[in-house]
Amino acid sequence: MSTPPLSSTERTRVRRLPERERTDRRELYDILDAGLICHLGVIVNGSPRVIPTGYGRDGDTLYLHGSTGATSLRADEVCVTVTHLDGIVLARSTFHHSMNYRSAMIFGRPRAVTDPEEKLAGLRTLAEQLAPGRWDLARRPNRKELAATTLLALPLEEASVKTRQGHPVDEEEDHALDVWAGILPIRQVTDAPVPDPLLRLGIPYVECDISHRR
Amino acid sequence: MSTPPLSSTERTRVRRLPERERTDRRELYDILDAGLICHLGVIVNGSPRVIPTGYGRDGDTLYLHGSTGATSLRADEVCVTVTHLDGIVLARSTFHHSMNYRSAMIFGRPRAVTDPEEKLAGLRTLAEQLAPGRWDLARRPNRKELAATTLLALPLEEASVKTRQGHPVDEEEDHALDVWAGILPIRQVTDAPVPDPLLRLGIPYVECDISHRR
Repeated sequence: MSTPPLSSTERTRVRRLPERERTDRRELYDILDAGLICHLGVIVNGSPRVIPTGYGRDGDTLYLHGSTGATSLRADEVCVTVTHLDGIVLARSTFHHSMNYRSAMIFGRPRAVTDPEEKLAGLRTLAEQLAPGRWDLARRPNRKELAATTLLALPLEEASVKTRQGHPVDEEEDHALDVWAGILPIRQVTDAPVPDPLLRLGIPYVECDISHRR
Repeated sequence: MSTPPLSSTERTRVRRLPERERTDRRELYDILDAGLICHLGVIVNGSPRVIPTGYGRDGDTLYLHGSTGATSLRADEVCVTVTHLDGIVLARSTFHHSMNYRSAMIFGRPRAVTDPEEKLAGLRTLAEQLAPGRWDLARRPNRKELAATTLLALPLEEASVKTRQGHPVDEEEDHALDVWAGILPIRQVTDAPVPDPLLRLGIPYVECDISHRR
């Protein structure tokens, strides 16, 4: 299915190193779908605040928990950034050292989700982003829990994607130096699951596959 | 050496889940020293913006590149957040699913570093945070590169640390459910270094040890 390209507004246009800008909406989806946490930027009493929090994507909507430290996020403008660090770029000069990364930035005003059906679906999206398969395994939210949860929906309208991949770009004359250059790849992995000491005997672990989260 | 405790100002006090607050300055240092990137929050034209960028700590000063997307960061208030994701907490109810993490948040107004000696030392701090040992291997910044780099210094004065570790905290009655519960640990690893195709033969890779970056 073809998707519309990403917006290019005054603030999503990549100014610094514009060659790193990506305009394919598919790349936005891939970066968001591969992530476990975002960094949510809000303004509180005139100051910026950056809060790490979970999220989930459903189509062109990003769902977020609304109780993440800001007094009220409703109707306030936010910036959500998701970053994957893929490697350290070791150049022949310190000046050209860099990082390989994929990063998505979304601007907008989230709305509070009040419709019970959308709220439940949004919470499912959040849960499945963090722990795929668990929605069908674990007890789902009851009425009290649903009421205690503030869910926000942010449209994926104004967004930008920036990536850097590949080897260092050194000055021509530095290639003569006796300095190793290349990439030190970085990756996120999961280790063997650690059962809760209170877990009753005989309950098997069902794989919660986040291996595509790279 | 004993260090002063972290500040508790109106905005660094942890409101949501205050039991996750840490007030030991050593924990702030540990979280910062273990990180490779931060998320820098600034206000641009009245909107929040969250930019992933490198940083380095020297004592109670955090150094940041100043050319990170914001038109000018000088004298503007910023929020720097560094987050380590340590695991996914799989509870018996979706409501109690969570993440294990360590997170530091620093507020302040960075100053532009203009003194050449501090600038060089600050860039060394930045380089060594990203790639320990490389400052002594790679060619150091020349005058032109130094002039082209804006370096910011942010004092570690107003900061907060928040962590969650350990197993899920489920409702008492949910312990009877046949749902596996525990932790799926997450960790960042490096793979074998990939040499630049342009690398001259016979130049050995010198370990750039970031294994303590967990």
